[in-house]
This record gives sequence, C-alpha cells and structure tokens, in this order.
Amino acid sequence: MKEPSVKFTDVNELGEFGLIRKLTEDIETIHKSTVLGIGDDAAVICHGDHHLVISTDLLVEGIHFDMIYSPLKHLGYKAIMVNLSDIYAMNATPQQVTVSIAISNKYSVEALEELYAGIKEACRRYKVDLVGGDTTSSPRGMTISVTAIGSVAKEKITYRSGAKNGDILCVSGDLGAAFLGLQLLEREKQLYLDNPGIKPELEEQKYVLERQLKPEARKDMISYMAKAELVPTAMIDISDGLASDLMHICHASGVGAYIEESKIPINQGAQMLALKFQMDPVTAALNGGEDYELLFTVDEKDLEKIRHLPSTYIIGEITVKEDGITLHTPAGNVHPLKAQGWSHFPDNVTDS
Amino acid sequence: MKEPSVKFTDVNELGEFGLIRKLTEDIETIHKSTVLGIGDDAAVICHGDHHLVISTDLLVEGIHFDMIYSPLKHLGYKAIMVNLSDIYAMNATPQQVTVSIAISNKYSVEALEELYAGIKEACRRYKVDLVGGDTTSSPRGMTISVTAIGSVAKEKITYRSGAKNGDILCVSGDLGAAFLGLQLLEREKQLYLDNPGIKPELEEQKYVLERQLKPEARKDMISYMAKAELVPTAMIDISDGLASDLMHICHASGVGAYIEESKIPINQGAQMLALKFQMDPVTAALNGGEDYELLFTVDEKDLEKIRHLPSTYIIGEITVKEDGITLHTPAGNVHPLKAQGWSHFPDNVTDS
Repeated sequence: MKEPSVKFTDVNELGEFGLIRKLTEDIETIHKSTVLGIGDDAAVICHGDHHLVISTDLLVEGIHFDMIYSPLKHLGYKAIMVNLSDIYAMNATPQQVTVSIAISNKYSVEALEELYAGIKEACRRYKVDLVGGDTTSSPRGMTISVTAIGSVAKEKITYRSGAKNGDILCVSGDLGAAFLGLQLLEREKQLYLDNPGIKPELEEQKYVLERQLKPEARKDMISYMAKAELVPTAMIDISDGLASDLMHICHASGVGAYIEESKIPINQGAQMLALKFQMDPVTAALNGGEDYELLFTVDEKDLEKIRHLPSTYIIGEITVKEDGITLHTPAGNVHPLKAQGWSHFPDNVTDS
Repeated sequence: MKEPSVKFTDVNELGEFGLIRKLTEDIETIHKSTVLGIGDDAAVICHGDHHLVISTDLLVEGIHFDMIYSPLKHLGYKAIMVNLSDIYAMNATPQQVTVSIAISNKYSVEALEELYAGIKEACRRYKVDLVGGDTTSSPRGMTISVTAIGSVAKEKITYRSGAKNGDILCVSGDLGAAFLGLQLLEREKQLYLDNPGIKPELEEQKYVLERQLKPEARKDMISYMAKAELVPTAMIDISDGLASDLMHICHASGVGAYIEESKIPINQGAQMLALKFQMDPVTAALNGGEDYELLFTVDEKDLEKIRHLPSTYIIGEITVKEDGITLHTPAGNVHPLKAQGWSHFPDNVTDS
C-alpha cells in the first residue's frame, strides 16, 4: 500500500510545454516508419508513397468547455474540428478519426446522442470516417479524446520547421473572435448565475459565439493551396494564440519574425466587443487562441500565388534568429512579442 | 444559456456495449482506405500492401485504477499494455503510440515522471515509438488516453468474425488472476483505511498482483504463431472476461461455441486465493477480465501447429450458432454461458 504521491514540483512551474518537454526529452524512436515523433501538430508515419499524419487531443469538462454554455452538439463538432485542424496544419487531408469518451452518470443517453450528432455532422461535412473509440464512465464530468489520421503526399507535407529568412508570414482568417466569444459567455454565465431569470441577448454576437463554440477547421485553405500549387515552407494551426504559435514556428525553424500590428485581421464585431470589455483587440488577437486558423510561411518567389489565395492575410515576415520575434506598431515602435497563450494549467483549479 | 441536460435514459440501462451500438449504429464509412470501422479490437486502414491497425483506450482514475494501490510506474506500463493487447489481437505488430494525459494539480512533476517511466519502459520492451499526445489539466484526478498503431500483412490480419463451425478454441494463458489481484487489493485497501498502521503482507501473492497491476500483452504469441505459420481464424484479447469476449467472437462470426470447464487454465495461487475469498475460481476465470490473454480460434487442420505452440490451451470448440454458447462441466452438465463481464458503468459511481 502506498500513499498518494507526495507533492514535489508543481506542474505550473513548468507550464504545459515545459512539462511535455521534460517528460518526453529522452524519447528516441526506432521504427523506420516513424518519420516524426513529438514536436509538431501531428506525428508522421511513412506508409507506401504517402505519409500518414496522426494527431490527438483531450477535451476536459471544466477546463476546455463548460456545460452551462456549450451545447452538446457543438461540443461534439468542436472536438472533431480541433483535431482536423492539426491535420490540415501538416498540409494533409484527414480521413479517419477515433473518438473516446469518459462520462459521469449525470449524462443521459439522449445527451450523448446529441454529442454524437455533432461528431457525426463534423465527420460528414469534412468527409472523415469515424472508425473506433472507447466509451467508459467517469467519476465526474466528461472527457473527450479524439485521434485523427490523415494522409499527404510526401513532397507536400509541411512541418513547423521549414520557415527561413525572407519568407512571407500569412494567416488564413481573422483572429481574436473565439477568445472574445469565450469572454462573452463567461460574463453571461456570471449574470445568469447571479440572476437565473434573465434572458441573455446574444443574437448580435453570433459571429464571436460561433468562433468559440463551433469553430471550423480550414479544409478549404488546403484545397486552395493545392489548386494554386503552393506548398508553404512551414505551417501550424492557431490554437494557443498567434504569438505563441508563431514562436513554435520560429523555435522549430531556428528563425526570427516580425508581425505588423496593422496587418493582423480582426473581425469588426470582435473589435467592438473588445472595446466594450475594455480589452485591447490586438492583445486578444495575439494571445486569445482557439481561432483554428492556419499560420503559414511562404517562400518569396510564391508571392503572386498568395495574392490570389482566398482569405489570406500577409501579416509579417520571417527574419534571422538574431532579430528575435517582434511586433511592429503603426507608430513605428518595435516590441518583443510575448506568448501569453492559454494556460491549460490554470491556478484556480483545485483537486480535492 | 442552457441548463445542463435533463436526465432521460440512464446509460446503465443500455450498458457499455449497448450504448456504443446506439451511438454508432448509423455510421457509414466513405474512404476506400477504411477497411474496418467500429466493432473489432481495432480499426483497420489500408495503406500500401499492409493494413494499419488502430486501437484506442481511456483509463480513468476512480474507474479503471485506484491511486491508493496503483504505483504510477505500473500504471503507465499498463496503459500501454492495454492498447498493445488490442493490436496483437488483430495479429498485428504495434509500432507507434500516442499518449494523452489530463491531470489535476494533486500530481507533481515527479509523479508524472514516474508515470512516464512506466510508459517508456513499456515502449522500449515492446519496441514501439511514442510519437505524440496531449497534456492538459483536469479538475479532478487523472485520465490517460492511449492510441496504438500497428501494421500487419493483409493476408495475416485476424478479425473477430472469422470463426467457423469445427474450429478449435484456444487461450494463450491462465485466467482469473488479474481479477483476484484486484479483489486482494480492494480488501487490503479497506483494511488499510480502517487501520493505517498495519503493513499488508502481499509477498506471497506476487503473481496475482502483477497480473492486475502490471500485465503483459502477448507479443510473444504473435511471434510463435508467425514461426508456426499459423493464422487464427478469429482472435480477441481477454479484457472483459473469457465469457464476454467469447460472445464477441461468436456474435461477430455468427457461430456458437462450448468451453470445457476442466480445460480452463487457472493459476494455482489464484485458485487458492479464490477459495480463501469464498469465490468460485471458474467464475473468476470466466468473468473476471483484464487477463490480456489472447482468445483465438484455429481451423481443425492446424491442430498439430497448436500442439507445438508454447503456452497455448485448447479449451473448447466452435459450433453452429443454434447450439448456443455453453459451458460443459466435468459432471457432464451443459450450462448456457452468461457474460457478466466488467461493468464500466458501475452503479456506485455518482457525480455531484
């Protein structure tokens, strides 16, 4: 018999990325088929003339979603999107997913059917097959684990590590709205808890709410790029936030970068909402996360191709490592970029 | 805003398998590469001249493991074994795993390093590459999600559905010990909680405890079969219990089967412990589960090959469907077999 582990180092001291690094730093791979292990949006396995790309994510109730404002159908849909987004970020096409759920007995069969309705709708729309999973009980709440499997021709696979000095930095859509949607939901939840009788007025904020509750992965961007015969030099999906995800590209590629603040695409409704909440819209766009847009770098010679790519914004440039990662403001100032990201180890979560 | 779902049908009314059936019954697959979806030990995807085999499992604290008696290193090891076992049950060789964990702040970095030490040891011993995963926080306890990916030559893949009348029914090792190990740990936990000062004497029970806490997947059996040029007609790993898992084979294959009670291999220590606990050892072997042995069926013409296969027990035969699934006792009685299995939706787990 053994006491539950004595507490030594708090995981918050390392943070999510530090913890993963510590736990996995000594891992070596032995199979020839293992092309890439830990450290990108997805793992890469070689089979035949294609690469298989595998990504997996856990969504935990009380951390990644709140049942008070997450409709189950949207939640199922989002659980799939989060994973497909990682596959697209490798320039690959997802083909299969597995879905495992752990659920407490507060969920009825009908509630789970709603969750699965969202999962199935996502699979239908994005043309992926749901091929397996596991269903089990949980002492509390719900955990959803999705693994997505995609395929890509070897010469088209796009890692985080291919960006080089002079490459053009692009993003596939507007940023910050998902974060503001979350802020709105959190505020409305508080109002609702204080006064359960009131009806929230959310109709005007449909865009930011959808960006938070029912995001879409950028399948269309992968098709646009294929049609334009464009292969980015590096790519990542924006889940942690523009600043944090740009840093992942820069660290993996051994380069620096700058973003022009004025070029960051921000939806007008999101901008208005940020001002209403007395938040800086640019900070929301840089650090909000959960946008599930693609952040990618393109060789200078492909500039013409990007100009004709739908919904693509050029926001900056890749530089040499020594220049650091910076934000250029309209007033001509240069600020070093900080990644605040999302903490998946929030301080206010306590285990009893 | 939306109230948490109103409770309609309790998931216990359907049970784990009924629930999975209900949630996934209308799922159709569209990709040519999807050879097999939900319904076997693993999903099967075709790439090149090999089949890829994908299996995923969730382990939830308080449901699948209890931190009071599960050393973290063993737990990490077991999380990998449970998944590799599913891959071997397809006659495939696992090559990659992804591991995702959700953890509450009661776990220190050192505790997680212990967990990963077990995960890494399992990967080293079984020659699989740890290629990815996700690490996040959880409001309570720990959830581990593992996905394993294996490969098998197309002509050697073994489904649950290939058993036919006259096939020989085999199992790769003794049964019931893991269940008795769990009973022993639960009793010692109770003694310990009643009187924290006492030291349990578990040395004599090393075998049953290891079967429960640190099982091994039957990689060796797959090698033996390959050397003997034996491809079973059907195969499954025993996770739910011999009775329940035999039923999976019979239902998938559209056949009946009988087991000779006297032929069921039961470890002597486990047998003694069952009697001490006033349990029927045969019931423990039939319904205990978590043995992670392979249950497989072999064409009559391959009888000689089985005779030379190490650690293989012939326990019965496949019959026509109309004969049902039965147990033949030494006294000559025939009982219909019931699958009690393990309920992963125990009644005593409540969500607050």
